[in-house]
Amino acid sequence: MAAIDFFYEFASTYSYITAMRIAPLAHAAGVTVRWRPFLLGPIFKAQGWDTSPFNLYPAKGRYMVRDCERQCAALGIAFHIPEPFPQHTLLAARVATIAMTEGWGEDFSRAVYRAQFAEHRNIGEPPVIDAIVRKLGRDSSAALARAQADDIKQSLRTTTEEAQRVGIFGAPSFVARGELFWGNDRLEQALAFAST
Amino acid sequence: MAAIDFFYEFASTYSYITAMRIAPLAHAAGVTVRWRPFLLGPIFKAQGWDTSPFNLYPAKGRYMVRDCERQCAALGIAFHIPEPFPQHTLLAARVATIAMTEGWGEDFSRAVYRAQFAEHRNIGEPPVIDAIVRKLGRDSSAALARAQADDIKQSLRTTTEEAQRVGIFGAPSFVARGELFWGNDRLEQALAFAST
Repeated sequence: MAAIDFFYEFASTYSYITAMRIAPLAHAAGVTVRWRPFLLGPIFKAQGWDTSPFNLYPAKGRYMVRDCERQCAALGIAFHIPEPFPQHTLLAARVATIAMTEGWGEDFSRAVYRAQFAEHRNIGEPPVIDAIVRKLGRDSSAALARAQADDIKQSLRTTTEEAQRVGIFGAPSFVARGELFWGNDRLEQALAFAST
Repeated sequence: MAAIDFFYEFASTYSYITAMRIAPLAHAAGVTVRWRPFLLGPIFKAQGWDTSPFNLYPAKGRYMVRDCERQCAALGIAFHIPEPFPQHTLLAARVATIAMTEGWGEDFSRAVYRAQFAEHRNIGEPPVIDAIVRKLGRDSSAALARAQADDIKQSLRTTTEEAQRVGIFGAPSFVARGELFWGNDRLEQALAFAST
């Protein structure tokens, strides 16, 4: 079956938009999606950035907010820019790494995005992640403890290194049949490419 | 009649793609396009860049080339990355500024883009611009002389300042009913917004 890798960073506004719309589109295209939570921080750091380019370049940041407002309004989903921006996503990404192996990774990821961009919650705070996991009916104490285990830390690190190796420099990014596609705007093209 | 401003920089790969497809799309949407050649150099310089971000961030640069190849293949237009990249565009932008007031600005702009991205010519060289103007049946000596006149230099500077004032940080950009849209990917949305 046709497949794509969907690389996403929890702090990324455009990754939020993709996460909210990828499942039905992929289903309609007959494409399986491998959800790949990773961290943009180390990739930004490697090119000399210590925060989001939307903070480093204010004109681009202001435009991004307006653009996301328009894109989300057209899709009928909520959007506000979180405070602080970007949020700390290490814990969310580690829990997502666990959840992906246990079958609740997609639901968890969407819930984290909703909490951040629709419900004004700070996903950098462990109680917020704890509440999300509980609401999904999962053992949150176990998940939050396991998030500190070496193999989980290493697994997330490996995904981030793979992202860097295939040339990823932003999120969301898609890999379909060895080709890289960057940005929520390229989702349809990546799905079409995967299924040909 | 509905209208949009199309801000473009001659060195910009995605501006090339827009320039090649905007006319029929705008016509179909019933939208008038004001072609606004400007310079990205001063805007990049103001945010600390001395060359294209595609050179400063090589992973992004490599991706851009592949993405433009795919987008252009889908549109049936040629694409190669020019050497050097980015090219010097001051003369082309000044001649375009003149040409816009004389009714041959669109044809000149498309010819400059074709020369650079389809015909392997260096648009930073005055003889290349001279040949383009001649081929359009215009008085090239007059145009190249006038390109050094103070009012033309100032007119281009004014457009670039306007671009910066409305929040433009890259090209192509569109302004429709006071709203900014960035990137070739937003052309359809800008046209739809202009005509509602």
